[in-house]
Amino acid sequence: MATAPSVSYSMTVRLEVPASGTAVSQLTTAVESHGGSVTGLDVTASGHEALRIDVTIAASSTAHADEIVEGLRGIDGVVLGKVSDRTFLMHLGGKIEMASKHPIRNRDDLSMVYTPGVARVCMAIAENPEDARRLTIKRNSVAVVTDGSAVLGLGNIGPKAALPVMEGKAALFKRFAGIDAWPICLDTQDTDAIVEIVKAIAPGFAGINLEDISAPRCFEIEARLREALDIPVFHDDQHGTAIVVLAALTNALRVVGKSIGDVRVVMSGAGAAGTAILKLLLAAGVKHAVVSDIHGIVHAGREDLVDTPADSPLCWVADNTNPEGVRGTLKEAVVGADVFIGVSAPNVLDGADVAAMAEGAIVFALANPDPEVDPAVARETAAVVATGRSDFPNQINNVLVFPGVFRGLLDAQSHSVNTEMMLAAAGALADVVAEDEVNANYIIPSVFNDKVAGAVADAVSSAAKAVGAAPAPSPTAV
Amino acid sequence: MATAPSVSYSMTVRLEVPASGTAVSQLTTAVESHGGSVTGLDVTASGHEALRIDVTIAASSTAHADEIVEGLRGIDGVVLGKVSDRTFLMHLGGKIEMASKHPIRNRDDLSMVYTPGVARVCMAIAENPEDARRLTIKRNSVAVVTDGSAVLGLGNIGPKAALPVMEGKAALFKRFAGIDAWPICLDTQDTDAIVEIVKAIAPGFAGINLEDISAPRCFEIEARLREALDIPVFHDDQHGTAIVVLAALTNALRVVGKSIGDVRVVMSGAGAAGTAILKLLLAAGVKHAVVSDIHGIVHAGREDLVDTPADSPLCWVADNTNPEGVRGTLKEAVVGADVFIGVSAPNVLDGADVAAMAEGAIVFALANPDPEVDPAVARETAAVVATGRSDFPNQINNVLVFPGVFRGLLDAQSHSVNTEMMLAAAGALADVVAEDEVNANYIIPSVFNDKVAGAVADAVSSAAKAVGAAPAPSPTAV
Repeated sequence: MATAPSVSYSMTVRLEVPASGTAVSQLTTAVESHGGSVTGLDVTASGHEALRIDVTIAASSTAHADEIVEGLRGIDGVVLGKVSDRTFLMHLGGKIEMASKHPIRNRDDLSMVYTPGVARVCMAIAENPEDARRLTIKRNSVAVVTDGSAVLGLGNIGPKAALPVMEGKAALFKRFAGIDAWPICLDTQDTDAIVEIVKAIAPGFAGINLEDISAPRCFEIEARLREALDIPVFHDDQHGTAIVVLAALTNALRVVGKSIGDVRVVMSGAGAAGTAILKLLLAAGVKHAVVSDIHGIVHAGREDLVDTPADSPLCWVADNTNPEGVRGTLKEAVVGADVFIGVSAPNVLDGADVAAMAEGAIVFALANPDPEVDPAVARETAAVVATGRSDFPNQINNVLVFPGVFRGLLDAQSHSVNTEMMLAAAGALADVVAEDEVNANYIIPSVFNDKVAGAVADAVSSAAKAVGAAPAPSPTAV
Repeated sequence: MATAPSVSYSMTVRLEVPASGTAVSQLTTAVESHGGSVTGLDVTASGHEALRIDVTIAASSTAHADEIVEGLRGIDGVVLGKVSDRTFLMHLGGKIEMASKHPIRNRDDLSMVYTPGVARVCMAIAENPEDARRLTIKRNSVAVVTDGSAVLGLGNIGPKAALPVMEGKAALFKRFAGIDAWPICLDTQDTDAIVEIVKAIAPGFAGINLEDISAPRCFEIEARLREALDIPVFHDDQHGTAIVVLAALTNALRVVGKSIGDVRVVMSGAGAAGTAILKLLLAAGVKHAVVSDIHGIVHAGREDLVDTPADSPLCWVADNTNPEGVRGTLKEAVVGADVFIGVSAPNVLDGADVAAMAEGAIVFALANPDPEVDPAVARETAAVVATGRSDFPNQINNVLVFPGVFRGLLDAQSHSVNTEMMLAAAGALADVVAEDEVNANYIIPSVFNDKVAGAVADAVSSAAKAVGAAPAPSPTAV
């Protein structure tokens, strides 16, 4: 499917153009004739003979951007200057910074922020370590930890190349939930080492957001850290995705009038996200689930599972799904299914597969950037279609979840995060879409809906207090 | 020696005072009669009968603050309200935060800061890892790493209690050098573990500032990290102190007209700071140094050194100082010495000891808050006296050094920090005090002198480029 011009492939091209003649008017035409879109045009210098013009253009890929530039070069009299990529410009020097909350103007300020005044604050925390949540950044800080092993859809690109994503994540934490997150990009992919490192850096943070760590290591790392630490540990690729999928499914089921306990769910993908989605769906009441991976439908007797350790994630999937022991391919599994959830690979299904699903079918094709089935094709027969893309309705986006979840955990000073809290988050997110708003093209709110983070945070915070994962508030005088 | 009232023990006391009568005028008198100092007096509410007044008062200790409050309580008609400790108020919720450099207003912003646009930036770094210094926060980020084992003069108070100091340090990095530092407080004091952790977190930073890690572990940790990492590792307690001491000594020697190669230097303290000062002084040309610790003068034949491993820091001191093999006590060592540098314990010397030093004696008594000798007493016979305290002239303060040193290292994209760079930093800092400014009470500039950080940074950056520790600049188009 063709991709529309996008600001994520946006560039600014500097041109010298003759002041007379038709060159100026040809610019926009040239961009559009090559399939680009002019989003800005500024004359930055002008003389009797020539104009200097900065044209900002959205393209649909790097190759497309090059093609548009060549098109501009072909206009008579136009001299091409510097071509700036807006996304790269925005990344120059990094996207986040550290800021001081207090000015340090004079010696008085210095003696309170730093020595000697700070010593009394240190001693107060030494005497009562819980005061770290009151008197330091710990109260509001989250470490965004990655080893760069599974970054976006880019794979194992390592810690340095992962940093722009982690910075972006930190920026989103602040934008949507006022949380101070800092990226920690690890130069190791050893499970034991990662566990030890995250345990060691925990004192300065109130939560750990694991990010873009590949399966199956991510399962063990998260489990061991949850066991070891007194702050919540949340692998966003797993649980953030699971929560937003459950919220979207909740509303999609409202649209088609089916109940979660009755539907047959077929999933494609048994990686980190797939496994977490499955677990949360089962916790939410799904009774009929079948999972397919690259080797076909997962069942206990499958050849590659015979030699797999019984405590492996895939064996867990086999033991907890597919009670009828269905075998075969993904395409066979979706026949008659009510719900398809793909977190796998592009184009594993086609229109005929979706047409073979049950009446009122729900299709979540979340592979990015190319979904498991073309959403336009899926919509021909399915009742509700969602993707991970921003250029179709119903975008399944973790940004709807992780800021609010951590806001709730931090507000409750929670020592952990568990399934009850995640179910509460999904419920609250689903309920942001009001009864009279929900329809096939609006099962999930926009990431810029300003009710989302607060609703999710309140639900998580209440759930944390209800399960006793958060301490009772103990007001202390300053 | 008595301590003057200080803003680091500052409080704001809320009082209800009768509108008529003399109560208001008695407030200031009462505070001053108890040795406090009124630094602010605000009427925050007023009626016919009564005033509500917030009085801000500097005391000299917590006990003294309590005493002053009791004094206020004794004034007829005064009703005491809330007493707020200004230093604690400033620490509520922590002193630093994460800030996004770009607003995220809409989907276009989101798609450049985060997915999908960020993916192209990640791939650019994956293809050319050095681009992380151009396209991420790595360029300007420093990790402030501690294990909480030797925090200020407070000792081994652990990572949570150390956090306020590390936040303060981060705030100072930004204030004086525009650097984005983030505290990493480690829940381990194992040397091997700390080395592995810091190696692992290095990809996201351009420098490591080790802080408040106890000797002798700090020596090994720093040495191993310098060997392993391609970014500079700087233990500020060692080298920051050493650089500012050398700068101050350089100017003190100008005041007394002596040469660094000729003076006899006696040091008290062979911990992290003492050892680093010694090494830098030797590199700067000191030929006659004697070090004393809690067991007296360090010499190769000393009983406790016989069984010490030959590669221990103290054996290094024995091998590189005291060529005459002087034995005995600190008090014996200082007789006839030109320079005394204390980084040890309060009141190890008295006025008679200082009087027994050579003509034109230089005394740096840096133990905090109580120096090795009362500076007022030392000044009776010494030519130049400096302390670590802010309430005497010539404050030896690391804040003069670490921001500029790291600014220079980051500007040069240096892969290391070495003695040449530290000597350059000390020289630049000394030279901020002009020839016609230097005198016995002004051997070192104020921390708020706005020439300091830039001068130190330029010197360090030039030295880094000169020794080839920094890569040649490679301009790349955006």
